[in-house]
Amino acid sequence: MIPRRYERLKQVLRKRQSDLTVITEDVHKPHNFSAIIRTCDAVGVFEVHSVNSNSKMPTYSPVAKGSDKWVNLHTHPDLKTAIAQLQQKDLKIYAAHLSEKAVDYRRIDYTKPTAILMGAEKHGVSELAADLVDGHIIIPMFGMVESLNVSVAAAVILFEAQRQRLAAGMYDRVSLDTKTLERVIFEWGYP
Amino acid sequence: MIPRRYERLKQVLRKRQSDLTVITEDVHKPHNFSAIIRTCDAVGVFEVHSVNSNSKMPTYSPVAKGSDKWVNLHTHPDLKTAIAQLQQKDLKIYAAHLSEKAVDYRRIDYTKPTAILMGAEKHGVSELAADLVDGHIIIPMFGMVESLNVSVAAAVILFEAQRQRLAAGMYDRVSLDTKTLERVIFEWGYP
Ligand SMILES: C[S@@+](CC[C@H](N)C(=O)[O-])C[C@H]1O[C@@H](n2cnc3c(N)ncnc32)[C@H](O)[C@@H]1O
Ligand SMILES: C[S@@+](CC[C@H](N)C(=O)[O-])C[C@H]1O[C@@H](n2cnc3c(N)ncnc32)[C@H](O)[C@@H]1O
Repeated sequence: MIPRRYERLKQVLRKRQSDLTVITEDVHKPHNFSAIIRTCDAVGVFEVHSVNSNSKMPTYSPVAKGSDKWVNLHTHPDLKTAIAQLQQKDLKIYAAHLSEKAVDYRRIDYTKPTAILMGAEKHGVSELAADLVDGHIIIPMFGMVESLNVSVAAAVILFEAQRQRLAAGMYDRVSLDTKTLERVIFEWGYP
Repeated sequence: MIPRRYERLKQVLRKRQSDLTVITEDVHKPHNFSAIIRTCDAVGVFEVHSVNSNSKMPTYSPVAKGSDKWVNLHTHPDLKTAIAQLQQKDLKIYAAHLSEKAVDYRRIDYTKPTAILMGAEKHGVSELAADLVDGHIIIPMFGMVESLNVSVAAAVILFEAQRQRLAAGMYDRVSLDTKTLERVIFEWGYP
């Protein structure tokens, strides 16, 4: 690996946030799923969780721009175990969900370990997911259309998380442990 | 028109921001263009400008969710006149552009009359546009991929504008003049 390349990979990995993640629940359109992964790469999300109970595993489209290589994807066939797994790691899970009890997404503290659950294009967040998560968040809308595109909604929330984490200096501290960092540099550098 | 419908249309129009707009420069993929228009509806953008010099007029996809009905689209064959027109109305135009002189998008005051210019999927903002606008803005990225999806970038900037305008109480003041408001309620209500 040429030194410049090695430095670039290390620089990116040193900014990766191990305690900020996204769960996609049956997001199945390739351009939506790909745009979410690409946004995760830009915000420094280390790994993404994808639950596909009602749909096939999403595929990538050219919209991903290769980000599928830089963001780890964990697929889960079952929502319940996926959520339990993350809660066990002490992440708070917020469903981006247009419900009665949803709070403004800007009121959440994203410097804490956080997972954002995004709902399916057509049916949104399932009742089961809405029940299991720690809270619902909503992006204020003032228009005629009832919802945002799912990749747009994910980006708006993730860049609010980025804003908060920037202000807290979290991109200047390394969040991955040394072993993981060395392993992933190797994986990325010699594919 | 049933009274409930009339009230809903009026409520949305009273929040429309006549001095916040988007210019798309050769954004030609229907799902990108449609997602931008849908985001504009949610943020309360009254009209969008679209310049299509190197590509055909963009078409809508199902991603728009009907927002093409609620956001006026002005198409311009020529970038120069489009920009001159908006600058004459005292809007500051910022190109979302990954250039050397770009400033962090969060440092802009979007409560002032503002237009955001978004570049083409493949080639980005043209040199001509980069020259003519009042400034360049950039969304900080910490990943391997060099850019965000264009509809994602537009949303991130527009929801920062929404945040600032909410804080300034601008959604509680009516920005359209009474004549326009009455005309558009009529157009929306009786298509
Ligand atoms: C197109 S929406 C689903 C719409 C579905 N009809 C519903 O009512 O939930 C797809 C996903 O995008 C996210 N989303 C869209 N608009 C949102 C908003 N304003 N606030 C929070 N999440 C939103 C949610 O995760 C939602 O499940
Ligand atoms: C896919 S990008 C174009 C990439 C192109 N290769 C370039 O270098 O400009 C399409 C458009 O999205 C917007 N965009 C994408 N990422 C951005 C970022 N981080 N900051 C500001 N605008 C961005 C810009 O308007 C850009 O022209």
